[in-house]
Amino acid sequence: MANPKICSIDGKLAEEFAVPSHVDEVKEKMTAFAIRHAAAGHRVVLITSGGTKVPLESRTVRFLDNFSSGRRGASSAEYFIDSGYAVIFLHRHRSLYPYTRMFSTINMLDALKFRGGDSGEVLVNQQVLPNISKALKRYQEMKEGQLLLPIEFSSLSEYLHLLKAAAQSLSTIGSKAMFYLAAAVSDFYIPASEMPEHKIQSSNGPLQLSMNMVPKILSPLVKDWAPQAFVISFKLETDGAILLDKARRALDTYRHQVVVANVLDSRRGYVVVVTPETQAELILTEEDVQNEVEIEERIVSNLTSAHNKFITQQGG
Amino acid sequence: MANPKICSIDGKLAEEFAVPSHVDEVKEKMTAFAIRHAAAGHRVVLITSGGTKVPLESRTVRFLDNFSSGRRGASSAEYFIDSGYAVIFLHRHRSLYPYTRMFSTINMLDALKFRGGDSGEVLVNQQVLPNISKALKRYQEMKEGQLLLPIEFSSLSEYLHLLKAAAQSLSTIGSKAMFYLAAAVSDFYIPASEMPEHKIQSSNGPLQLSMNMVPKILSPLVKDWAPQAFVISFKLETDGAILLDKARRALDTYRHQVVVANVLDSRRGYVVVVTPETQAELILTEEDVQNEVEIEERIVSNLTSAHNKFITQQGG
Repeated sequence: MANPKICSIDGKLAEEFAVPSHVDEVKEKMTAFAIRHAAAGHRVVLITSGGTKVPLESRTVRFLDNFSSGRRGASSAEYFIDSGYAVIFLHRHRSLYPYTRMFSTINMLDALKFRGGDSGEVLVNQQVLPNISKALKRYQEMKEGQLLLPIEFSSLSEYLHLLKAAAQSLSTIGSKAMFYLAAAVSDFYIPASEMPEHKIQSSNGPLQLSMNMVPKILSPLVKDWAPQAFVISFKLETDGAILLDKARRALDTYRHQVVVANVLDSRRGYVVVVTPETQAELILTEEDVQNEVEIEERIVSNLTSAHNKFITQQGG
Repeated sequence: MANPKICSIDGKLAEEFAVPSHVDEVKEKMTAFAIRHAAAGHRVVLITSGGTKVPLESRTVRFLDNFSSGRRGASSAEYFIDSGYAVIFLHRHRSLYPYTRMFSTINMLDALKFRGGDSGEVLVNQQVLPNISKALKRYQEMKEGQLLLPIEFSSLSEYLHLLKAAAQSLSTIGSKAMFYLAAAVSDFYIPASEMPEHKIQSSNGPLQLSMNMVPKILSPLVKDWAPQAFVISFKLETDGAILLDKARRALDTYRHQVVVANVLDSRRGYVVVVTPETQAELILTEEDVQNEVEIEERIVSNLTSAHNKFITQQGG
């Protein structure tokens, strides 16, 4: 029996967040992907990545956004694939993408050159992109194995409905499914009913915004949509003092398996993996940084072992 | 004598919008660029492009943003360069960029292939990117001539201070300078003094935001910072009914030369170039669209002729 609170979240989703037209089609794709890979003995992780847009107008000119380059999600996707997982990559349109993320700061045309002569060939200048060969090889292998299913969102509404669809798709493979919820999701939104159609006019004077709180989707995800899955949520704070307390409270409230807690300024070199029983600090040393070790490699290795134990306990 | 209103805008800028640390260095670069190109007989256009971020927290996790891919600014920069202008491209970090913009929707790794054999060479697959050769050639010629000076902003504060610096730099070349203010600038902001330091806690309940109106920078730009320049502002509305009226009012208020007026849904195929005396509709026909003509080509051609007349009238 679903409890009233959860019903109301499902209700809110349907009422106040526009359903993307392609959600059923995407859901079928995700289900087929999960079943195919589970049958092949792979585990499947759903990674959410990037920030969500919250429109202030229905024909959107202005929107509220969350800071997130999508680096953690894109980087983690690569390490999950290296660990034998198949990845559904539910990411913000234009956020960082697995394998291409290392070129995101480079102007592509600065990295190309003509061979010269009449060949008309255009080459990558490997002085500008020394790792291109390795990245292209890994990318092609990943495509060969069809190990990555990319799904895009931009708005909070798209994110919420696609996450629900993904959870229902992955429920078909039980404990072999992992949810790695790294996206930076807005806590606030303006209900469709209260949204002006046209661009807010500055001539009307200062702007007063009143935003509702976004329903805590983690609750129905854990209880109803994918009750057997291994679920990891992320906590990002700017104030380290309240971080672990908030992580523990999230575990108590939502009854999921792991919270990865991090502070904005140190998030690339330090996280705490919090479970109901344990608390593990993952830290990059100076040496790690010099060797270009990424914290996501440590996070993924910690979580894949935890997922192993979880599956055994569930007798999956 | 600057009038009180303008003083107060300069004051507000200094008080309520954090000054970027590199503004003086950027200003020197822009001044040198303008003087060098004016001496070589070039005109110089400052293009602003992309949307501005308005932080809600001083250690920013959340921000208000404006819809803008930067397509119009990036595309226009190419046509200005084709018309013999040197371009200062003041653009939002990661917005569309001249020449690379046509590849922005493509995953770079899908467009590359190994030559095979032991060469270790990585080639562009010209079936995926048929125009790469042409784009690379134009890009390399532009770099050769040092015709583009790219400057990045992200926040509204950076935009405002860098635009002021640009205006003062370009005032050194008088009427040979054009301002093409295509960026989508926020009308609202939260003063540094009223901004919380840390991430707003959703546990505190619904979010009430009260935002001040951004000072109208066009006013001091036209009157004080670059009084001899040829200045174009843009009006984007979602409601066509109020568009031309708002364009005319802007010309009356700020006394600049041109407003390019457009409606969100039709902006790629229809604009109105409004001056105090004239009003010209620029429209792409079906045929134009099939021939991949871009509206920016028409806009730039219209404005460069208007700039010619303007310079002659000024006896520049």
